[in-house]
Formats: sequence, C-alpha cells, structure tokens
Amino acid sequence: MSPARISRGTNPLRDPDDLRLPKIAGPCAVVMFGVTGDLARKKLLPAIYDLAGRGLLPPGFSLVGFGRRDWDDAQFAQTVREAVEAGARTTFREDVWRNLSDGLRFVQGEFDDDAAFDKLAATLRALDEERGTGGNAAFYLSIPPDAFEPVCAQLDRSGLATQEQDSWRRVIIEKPFGHDLASARELNQTVEHVFGADSIFRIDHYLGKETVQNLLALRFANQLFEPVWNSHYVDHVQITMAEDIGIAGRAGYYDGIGAARDVIQNHLLQLLALTAMEQPNSFGADELRAEKEKVLAAVRLPEDLAKATARGQYTAGWQGSEKVTGFLQEDGIDPGSTTETYAAVKLEVYTRRWAGVPFYLRTGKRLGKRVTEIAVIFRRAPHLPFTDTATEELGQNAIVIRVQPDEGTTLRFGSKVPGAGTMQVRDVTMDFSYGSAFTESSPEAYERLILDVLLGDPPLFPRHREVELSWRILDRVERFWARKGRPEGYEAGTWGPRSAAELLARDRREWRLP
Amino acid sequence: MSPARISRGTNPLRDPDDLRLPKIAGPCAVVMFGVTGDLARKKLLPAIYDLAGRGLLPPGFSLVGFGRRDWDDAQFAQTVREAVEAGARTTFREDVWRNLSDGLRFVQGEFDDDAAFDKLAATLRALDEERGTGGNAAFYLSIPPDAFEPVCAQLDRSGLATQEQDSWRRVIIEKPFGHDLASARELNQTVEHVFGADSIFRIDHYLGKETVQNLLALRFANQLFEPVWNSHYVDHVQITMAEDIGIAGRAGYYDGIGAARDVIQNHLLQLLALTAMEQPNSFGADELRAEKEKVLAAVRLPEDLAKATARGQYTAGWQGSEKVTGFLQEDGIDPGSTTETYAAVKLEVYTRRWAGVPFYLRTGKRLGKRVTEIAVIFRRAPHLPFTDTATEELGQNAIVIRVQPDEGTTLRFGSKVPGAGTMQVRDVTMDFSYGSAFTESSPEAYERLILDVLLGDPPLFPRHREVELSWRILDRVERFWARKGRPEGYEAGTWGPRSAAELLARDRREWRLP
Repeated sequence: MSPARISRGTNPLRDPDDLRLPKIAGPCAVVMFGVTGDLARKKLLPAIYDLAGRGLLPPGFSLVGFGRRDWDDAQFAQTVREAVEAGARTTFREDVWRNLSDGLRFVQGEFDDDAAFDKLAATLRALDEERGTGGNAAFYLSIPPDAFEPVCAQLDRSGLATQEQDSWRRVIIEKPFGHDLASARELNQTVEHVFGADSIFRIDHYLGKETVQNLLALRFANQLFEPVWNSHYVDHVQITMAEDIGIAGRAGYYDGIGAARDVIQNHLLQLLALTAMEQPNSFGADELRAEKEKVLAAVRLPEDLAKATARGQYTAGWQGSEKVTGFLQEDGIDPGSTTETYAAVKLEVYTRRWAGVPFYLRTGKRLGKRVTEIAVIFRRAPHLPFTDTATEELGQNAIVIRVQPDEGTTLRFGSKVPGAGTMQVRDVTMDFSYGSAFTESSPEAYERLILDVLLGDPPLFPRHREVELSWRILDRVERFWARKGRPEGYEAGTWGPRSAAELLARDRREWRLP
Repeated sequence: MSPARISRGTNPLRDPDDLRLPKIAGPCAVVMFGVTGDLARKKLLPAIYDLAGRGLLPPGFSLVGFGRRDWDDAQFAQTVREAVEAGARTTFREDVWRNLSDGLRFVQGEFDDDAAFDKLAATLRALDEERGTGGNAAFYLSIPPDAFEPVCAQLDRSGLATQEQDSWRRVIIEKPFGHDLASARELNQTVEHVFGADSIFRIDHYLGKETVQNLLALRFANQLFEPVWNSHYVDHVQITMAEDIGIAGRAGYYDGIGAARDVIQNHLLQLLALTAMEQPNSFGADELRAEKEKVLAAVRLPEDLAKATARGQYTAGWQGSEKVTGFLQEDGIDPGSTTETYAAVKLEVYTRRWAGVPFYLRTGKRLGKRVTEIAVIFRRAPHLPFTDTATEELGQNAIVIRVQPDEGTTLRFGSKVPGAGTMQVRDVTMDFSYGSAFTESSPEAYERLILDVLLGDPPLFPRHREVELSWRILDRVERFWARKGRPEGYEAGTWGPRSAAELLARDRREWRLP
C-alpha cells in the first residue's frame, strides 16, 4: 500500500490524491496457471481486461499464460480476446485491448518440466526489460490443489518465488484449501515454505463482493445497528447460500467434496466471521483478520451433532419448468455416492456478545432459488402494549443482507395496518438496493481481488490460521457424517431435506424463505 | 368500547368478532354546528358518508344540521350530497346515500335562540322514536371558539347535554382550544361544566392520521428501534410542519393567532409527546394520555429565549412558478401586524430518557414544500474504523417519519460506495411507503376520529391537562415575542427566516431539507 506504487501513467485526468478512486497498480506482471480452465476464461481474464479498461493497471502490465497447449503468443492473445469479448463487464475498446495485448505472452509446458519454468523466468526478465514490470510478479494458481505442490516447487527451483530488493513475488491460490484440517495444514506448509505468509493471497471470491464489504460499513459506520447487534436483541442468525443449479458437469470435483467443504468451510464461515466479529480498530489486514480469527476460534458445535446438522442429496424434480435429474443419476457420479449436495449446521459463537445466539448455516444445490444472504433475526419486543389479536400477524424484526443476486439490505419490522379500528400490526419491509442507490456500478469480485493482490493489499484474503480454524469446525461434522451412510434425499426445486427443517423446528424456529 | 355497542346490522358478511376490522358504531345521532363552514363541507360531511359507505354507521344513524340558513331537510340533504360527491374518498353509491339521507334533518336557528334548541331537542327525540338512535348524540362544534360557551349553555339549558341512563351525550370541539393558558382553562371549565370530562372529545386531526398512530406501532411493536430511542444514541429530534400555502383567505382567524398558537401548541407538541413518551402498559386512553402528559410536563424551554426561538413573516416571493404576495399585503391583514407565519422553538425533555437531547420544532406558511415529518437524528458512531477520507460523505443516521404527504418511514444510514478502492461510505436511504405497502387504503383522519367519538374510544383525543400543559410551554414564548416587535421577514418559497437557521447553527446543527 505504499504510495510509491501509485502510477498516474494511464489516466492523466485522475487525481492520485483522491482516495475515493481506486488506486492504480504499480508495474507488474501476472502469470496465470490453468489459463484454459473455466474460471480463467469466464472470470479472471475478463476481470483483468476490466481493470485495464478502468485504467487501474500500469502501462507496462504483462500477462503470461502457462499451459500444455502448443500455442504461440498470438494464439494465446486470440484466446484471451475471445474470453474478454464474451465475459468483460465494461465495453470492449480497441485501444484498451491494444495496450493489454502488447503484454501477453504464452509459455508452453508441463508442471514437471524444468525447462518450461526456466523459460517462464526468462520471459519475465525479458518483459521487465521491454515493458518495465519492475521485477514484480503474481502467480495465479488456477489449478487443482494437487498441482499446488509441484508448481510451487518449480517456482522455488527456478528462482521465480524469490523477491529481489524493491520488488515482489506473490502467489494467489483458490479454494479448496485442502479437504480437512490435516491436508490444509500440509498445503499451507508447502506454499509458505516457498512464499512467505505475507505473499500468499487466498481468494475467497465472496469476500470481494460489494455487499460483504458493505456489511462492515453497515455495522461500523452507523449508530443505528451496532447497539442491537448482540445477544440482548438478536434471537438468531441465518446464513444461506442457495443455488438453483445442480453440479453442472463438475462431478469430478464435487463427488467426495460435498456442500459443506465446498461452501460452508470457506464462504459461509467467512460470512459468519464478518457478521459476528468485534469492531477492529481499523480495516488493516492484521486487525481485520485477527477479529475474524477470534470469532472462528470461539465457534462451538453442539454436543449432539445429530440434532445440530442436516445433509441431503437432491433427487429428480422440477426446477421451474425444467425437469432435472437427481444427483446420483448425474454423469460421472458414483450411484452409491454419499456426497451431500445440501448441508446445514447450527453453531454457537462463545463470546460475550453472542453466547446463546444460534447461527444456522445452510447451503445446497437444486434449491428453490439462487440466493446468498445473511439474516439477523431479532427477538420479539419483551412487552407489547397491544391487544392480543393486534400482533397475530407480527413476526420478528430482521435485517437481511443480500449478497447475491440484487445486492442490498432489507429491514423487516412491524407497522400499523391502515384503517383497522383497533390497532393491528403487520410485518412490512424497507429495502435498500445497491444497484439502484448508486450510479457507480459494482465491480466484479475478481476485479477487486486481483487489484488488491497487485497492490499488496491483503485484508480481504483469509490467513493461514482462518483456514485451519474453519477446518477444525468442519472436521468434526465430516467425521460424524462419514459414520452415517447416505444423506437424506430432497426433491430438486425444494428447500432441502426434512431433517433441515426439523433442525430449526426443534428450536421452535423456521428457515427463512428468501 | 363495550362490546354491546357493536351492531352487526349493516353488513351481514362481517364477523363481529374479527377485531382486525373496525368496530361499528352503535345507535346514535350527530348534531353538527357550523354545517355550512369549510371544514364541514370539505372534511366532516364526506367523512360521515365514507363511514356509512364502509358499513361502520348503525342502521338508524341520523345527522342533524343546525344553522342560520332558512333550509328544510331536503335543502340540507342537497347540501350534504354536494359536499359528499365533491369530497368523499369512497365511491358514491345510491344505496348508501339513501340510507344516510333518510336520517338527515335540519334545525334552523341562532345560538342564542332558546326555541331553536328546544326544537333540536324535539328533533332528536323524534329521531330516536323513528330510527332508534337510542338517545345517543354527539354534538360537533365546528364553530369559532367564542361560540363554544353560548352553545354549551343552550345544550345545558335544553337538557341536551344530560345523558340518560344507558345513553350518552358527547361534545366534539376543534382547536384552537383557547389562545393562552388562561383562556384555555376558562374554555375547559365552560365545557366541562356542561359535559363531563369523559364526554369531551378535542379533535386534533393530526392524531387521526395513520402515521401518527403508526409511530406507536413503530416504536413499541418492534425490537429494532426502541433500544436506540434515547439520549445515548439520539443526537436531536426535528419536528416539522411546513405548508407551501399562505393564509389562504383565513386572515380573520390567523391575524393575532400566528404559527405557534395555530400549529405548535397542538399538532407539534402532540407529535413531540408521542415521539418522546415512555411505553404505556396498553393503549387505553388513560394510560396513553398519562404518558403524553408526563412528557409535556417535562418539557423545558432554555433560559435565553432569544437563542431558543425564531419567528418570521413571509414576504413576497415565488412559490414554484407562481408569484405570491407577502403576509402584510394579504387581504384582511393589518399592514402593521406582528403575527408570525413562521415559528421555531428549541425544547428539552427533562426525563431520564431524553435529558440533553434538543427537540427542534418548526412550522411555517409559504415554505419550500408541504411536508410534516418527525426526524430522529442519531449521534455519529463513537469510533469509525475507516480512514479519515472514507467518511467525508457520511452524515448522521436518521429515522424520518413522514406524516404527510406520502405517509411512511425513511431510514438514512451509511453504505459502502461501490467500486472505490479504499472503503468509502456515503449516506443512502431505505424507505417504507405506507401507500404502496398496504392494499388497505388509509381512511381520512376525520373518519377515524368521528368513528372513535361514536364508539366512545378516547385515546386519540387530548385531555384537558394536555392542552393546559401545552399552553404553559407556549405562553412563555408568546410573552417573550410580544415584547420584541415585528418578526423577521423571509421570502415566500424559502425555508424560513435567517434566525431559524442561526438557532440550529449555534448548536452546530442544520435543519433538514425535507
């Protein structure tokens, strides 16, 4: 975050002292592994173009693809262009593209091929001389986790991981960060052996979403919400990530992983940490991450996991007007698979602020609707000066933070019903929609996160310890489930297995219908 | 409120046990004095028709007009019909009208004419026999306050104020309830000498508005707002009733009265009482009014009224595209008049909940916009974990209750600005609009209040003591102004005199621009 990295090269109209504008990355290159994969094509390459289009990349920015394909630079450039034209958020402009494509290179090779990594090193040196990347490089490992180790070893061997004075080398890894606590520890050790802890950027793209950051603003910039954000006023919290799609051709990845490892371990526990954490002194990386870790370290699972968890597998059903197959009938899934496509967990956060308030986390595929939200449900007022019948239609107050789609915040509260003779109170909502409140458009999560990596700005990236704390929570659940055989079925297009509804019913509560 | 008064006569489809529906008035008659006046024509007669149209009046309901005009019943009925057709909220239906008009009578006379009042008594007796009004009658004094005494004396003399066993006689009076504490006391004594305190219904039509009642629901049915509704979190409160019109031909009434007596003494102090009061055990009349009185008794004016009040007179200017004259040039206004058309007062409520929180009240004619609202402005968060520049565009949180027009509630709070690199926070709003949230349409304030009188349901009507407490507050201000000569001018279409802005500027605050 040193101001020396701010370049005013690309846009003479920018005032570099205006902190309301995003900072511009300093000289650097990005090396992308797994450049032909889905994530690169759909998200990463378009995000890099969008950053270029917004004038946030330095003039000599360079992007090196590394892969097995027998491509030259021009063929790589063609692939990048196609991905950008199909996926970029901003308009395609030839001048932006010309600048960006001048810095595109492709290095062909396998992950165990020393010569290829030596050639990568030479390519980066040449780019530095030609385009002034300052020796700075970020390695984006958009590859399966079992390839992290060989690639890191190669980067180490070829000297690519070593940062010279006044320059930096960083590595970006994507979840899954292991599949349990032991493997996560091993992975962390492998990567930290090569790159220092400060040079590792673990991407959880949910943390790049505007609403997640807005949760921090909502909680800590205001005086209205924080006074009631605790166990005195909050009854419980529901954190939901629901997908309407199935496994969508990702059988190889998903079978054996399941909903809890895929979503709860990272996205949902991170949302929980941001919802439950104490106010940091500032949003500096160390302070923010220390608060999140404090929450994760305070999370406890109830003793009896049979009553505190639920899991399911979707069966055939209807998604809107489309008839869809069950999980066990999907291509590439073992018909005897016990992998869950729905997972729900009840947790408690044993801090002074939250003890006694349950946090219910759920995620699933083939549910009724695509939605990610945090719902803070308040206790009822302790005394109601109304007649008994006046509040029959009054529920509990709620603040709902929608992460996607249609990012925003909704408040649910009771209001008088017009015209009734006696006072009648009914739930109403007021809504704040991010999209319609601001003329500024929201950048994609990956734009924000890639830029943060290039700026060396780490608050939004989970640290080593957060990942391990999250696995510690999940390991007990996974071990419990492993002893239980096949998950309960739930019909595609519904809101999950019966056991999930029972989980809340035992506490005399209900899942929100988002 | 006794259930015996519920009649199921008019609408066989109603379930009389469904308390969500308004109750139906029991057998009764209304006698209206001042039936040819503006208020009767524009508001009261249409409201009575609307009550009939909604099936809330008893089958034998009767309405007697009393006035100087030489009308027979048919001419009176024609006048009522014209007022209804022009002003009713609900659709005009011949069947409803036929029922209603069967019970219309007119008694011709002056207020000092014993014979006329005897005839009125005979008319009511006849109506009871013909239509079964049960001897119940409400006398609506829609007449100048100096006529209250002679009319009450006549009602007394003719026995009309005396309630027989199992029947009731009530009187409805409209503000102004006096012009200072002494005259208000005298008026209260006059009326209470004839009718018992429980039979007097003082109409402040603001209290019949849905949002005012909704303020009670908002505060007391919810758990989100009440915890921050006190001096720990609230910085100050602004209560505004702004009119864009001038005195609109009411020179005779307005000159010598002015904005403070016309609006602050009743509407604004009532809104203040509802905003600041403690939670009553129930909304029963005694409990609700006791809480309001407690607030009014706790109101204190600052020592130095020169710094705590402001007043003004509008001068010529533009109201939108219309050029308008100044107050002193209006027809019927003494060119040397010192009557204020704008008044602002700073008050404090010396209770444990509110001590130290200023309440700013303002009202005026020919202001920028027609709006009545209560704005609760919160303190800033005590600590902001943001960079200094991040919160430059962040104001104070606010809950704004709009009484009119477009009744509803708005929340102002800080939200992250999308896309900015560093965290930026800016004010946004979420809004709840009464009109769009409910399919039920809001009855007019007068519908609600007239029905409450007929039902004998008094919580929304200020008591004797509230009126006197309000005058006690205002008397000191009026005496102070009386020594000060002519009010400061302010241009029509602006937001009042400079001294009003200075009043808040001294406290480093600003009036809201509604």
